[in-house]
Amino acid sequence: MGKLVEEFNNYREKMNDRIMETANTNIKRFFALDTTSYADGALDVKTKEMLGLVASMVLRCDDCIKYHLGKCHDAGVNNDEMNEIFMIANLVGGSIVIPHYRRAVEYWDDLLSSEAGV
Amino acid sequence: MGKLVEEFNNYREKMNDRIMETANTNIKRFFALDTTSYADGALDVKTKEMLGLVASMVLRCDDCIKYHLGKCHDAGVNNDEMNEIFMIANLVGGSIVIPHYRRAVEYWDDLLSSEAGV
Amino acid sequence: MGKLVEEFNNYREKMNDRIMETANTNIKRFFALDTTSYADGALDVKTKEMLGLVASMVLRCDDCIKYHLGKCHDAGVNNDEMNEIFMIANLVGGSIVIPHYRRAVEYWDDLLSSEAGV
Amino acid sequence: MGKLVEEFNNYREKMNDRIMETANTNIKRFFALDTTSYADGALDVKTKEMLGLVASMVLRCDDCIKYHLGKCHDAGVNNDEMNEIFMIANLVGGSIVIPHYRRAVEYWDDLLSSEAGV
Amino acid sequence: MGKLVEEFNNYREKMNDRIMETANTNIKRFFALDTTSYADGALDVKTKEMLGLVASMVLRCDDCIKYHLGKCHDAGVNNDEMNEIFMIANLVGGSIVIPHYRRAVEYWDDLLSSEAGV
Amino acid sequence: MGKLVEEFNNYREKMNDRIMETANTNIKRFFALDTTSYADGALDVKTKEMLGLVASMVLRCDDCIKYHLGKCHDAGVNNDEMNEIFMIANLVGGSIVIPHYRRAVEYWDDLLSSEAGV
Repeated sequence: MGKLVEEFNNYREKMNDRIMETANTNIKRFFALDTTSYADGALDVKTKEMLGLVASMVLRCDDCIKYHLGKCHDAGVNNDEMNEIFMIANLVGGSIVIPHYRRAVEYWDDLLSSEAGV
Repeated sequence: MGKLVEEFNNYREKMNDRIMETANTNIKRFFALDTTSYADGALDVKTKEMLGLVASMVLRCDDCIKYHLGKCHDAGVNNDEMNEIFMIANLVGGSIVIPHYRRAVEYWDDLLSSEAGV
Repeated sequence: MGKLVEEFNNYREKMNDRIMETANTNIKRFFALDTTSYADGALDVKTKEMLGLVASMVLRCDDCIKYHLGKCHDAGVNNDEMNEIFMIANLVGGSIVIPHYRRAVEYWDDLLSSEAGV
Repeated sequence: MGKLVEEFNNYREKMNDRIMETANTNIKRFFALDTTSYADGALDVKTKEMLGLVASMVLRCDDCIKYHLGKCHDAGVNNDEMNEIFMIANLVGGSIVIPHYRRAVEYWDDLLSSEAGV
Repeated sequence: MGKLVEEFNNYREKMNDRIMETANTNIKRFFALDTTSYADGALDVKTKEMLGLVASMVLRCDDCIKYHLGKCHDAGVNNDEMNEIFMIANLVGGSIVIPHYRRAVEYWDDLLSSEAGV
Repeated sequence: MGKLVEEFNNYREKMNDRIMETANTNIKRFFALDTTSYADGALDVKTKEMLGLVASMVLRCDDCIKYHLGKCHDAGVNNDEMNEIFMIANLVGGSIVIPHYRRAVEYWDDLLSSEAGV
């Protein structure tokens, strides 16, 4: 697994565990909704993860972007599709998104390198 | 055509005409990019319009939401799919999105009523 | 009841009814969370509504502001307290909040006038 | 004076008067800072108003945009300069700014028409 | 003192000192307002710091969140109260807040550990 | 060259190269627009870079701020002018901008130290 991917996943998992220890019922329900909303339904998982990614990019949240890049990779989004998502995110969100796009490209490369067994 | 849809389209068309009269070359190029980015490509038009809609909802721009609702309707997004987009937008963007979601439901109903020949 | 308050409440109620007719299960759960999160708990209702108001102001959502102004009024927030909330919202969110603050003052006056039986 | 300009100025003046009646000392200091920050200094008024306008556009606040358009007009910003500001605002803020840009063009036309004695 | 808390406080203090050396009068007035707005008044310090925290969370500013977490800790906010603030912030701001919530939980733990003399 | 400046420029250059290898035509056009929009025109480069900086500050993007600080430095913006830009950014964007302002001051110092041959 690529180094960026591993670091992101480890911290996310550690803190989600801590949240499950400390959070109240409403927060746990909110996290449950966060899971079920991306499940296969009228829209398939791939489409929903692309929606989650573009929303994360225009709102400029690096960790959210990394999470949905990982899920998009799992769902089989290819490079050409990813570039079209990147374009819509840059267009709608503006050049202020570009630094996040740079880090997204770096993370996407990291995901692809781990796929290649590097 | 529904009344909300008609009002939105008329104002948008009028001001886009005025922009084409007054804007400089870079602005015109930016508008051209705004068109070509949603064209059929590695991702189809329906997927891209859903991406545009969710981005517009989490950024809370009523006019952008109306525009992409119209395009989603043209592209054949059905009610069940639309509800799953609405859910992701509410979830990612938070309850601050709800007033925009209310107006989106009203506009979507207006689009459906115009479809029904009302 | 003041005119602004009445218009806001009527539209909100109408569209919430429509949402309950059309929304999927996840959206209904999200709306339920939106209710229970402001219920009396470790923090009382008055404190929670002030939190909801300041969040709505810095995110600059007029309808959300109106909603929480109404709830703050019900919970007994007085003018001096309200001014200190307004100040924190203007300070944290910046002068970009001022137009929303203007409309908030107008709505707050409308709430107070309805209280006075006007 | 153009109709849009007049309506904006009237409402703004009415609510600013009401704010001066009701606000606490800190809010009044914040409003004072809002005035002095745009005064002639190391940067001239015209430059500062252009800064205020571009900030208002990328943050997508229609009233703030109208206010700074009026001030830019007073400071002698011409159409070519205004188009370059509009472009930077659209570029940095993204296509989500376009509906605000449409309304800005309409308001700028209203300012120019009042200049022409219409 | 916990390590995260110490690092945050040191950098903040160093740069605030530098700002006081370099800033103009208006900036210093703005910083003064930032202090006086959270002072005890019609609302007590604890309530105001909770308002500052929820505003910082929905606007997703990690440093602002850390600052107000420290102040909330000083003002005696307990874990149950903090969880209800976290829930309102996640709800209003949406799942895009979650990565900031993760870092807030880590920092809150760091504040509690320093309290325990660790 | 100062250390912060060097690190920023190196990463930016590396990822822009990678983007030019991987991006589609629309993304390349968007990047081209991002260059031409800041070129000398009806407004000079110095004014445009100040516009880019204030937009980046109120949208709270550290990398965008660093980029435009570098360009403002190249264009001859002096300390007094920079402080007035900082004030407008803090005022319009609010105290939520302050942590970004701290980092901007640190980076500006780094730019000035490299100028001094340190």
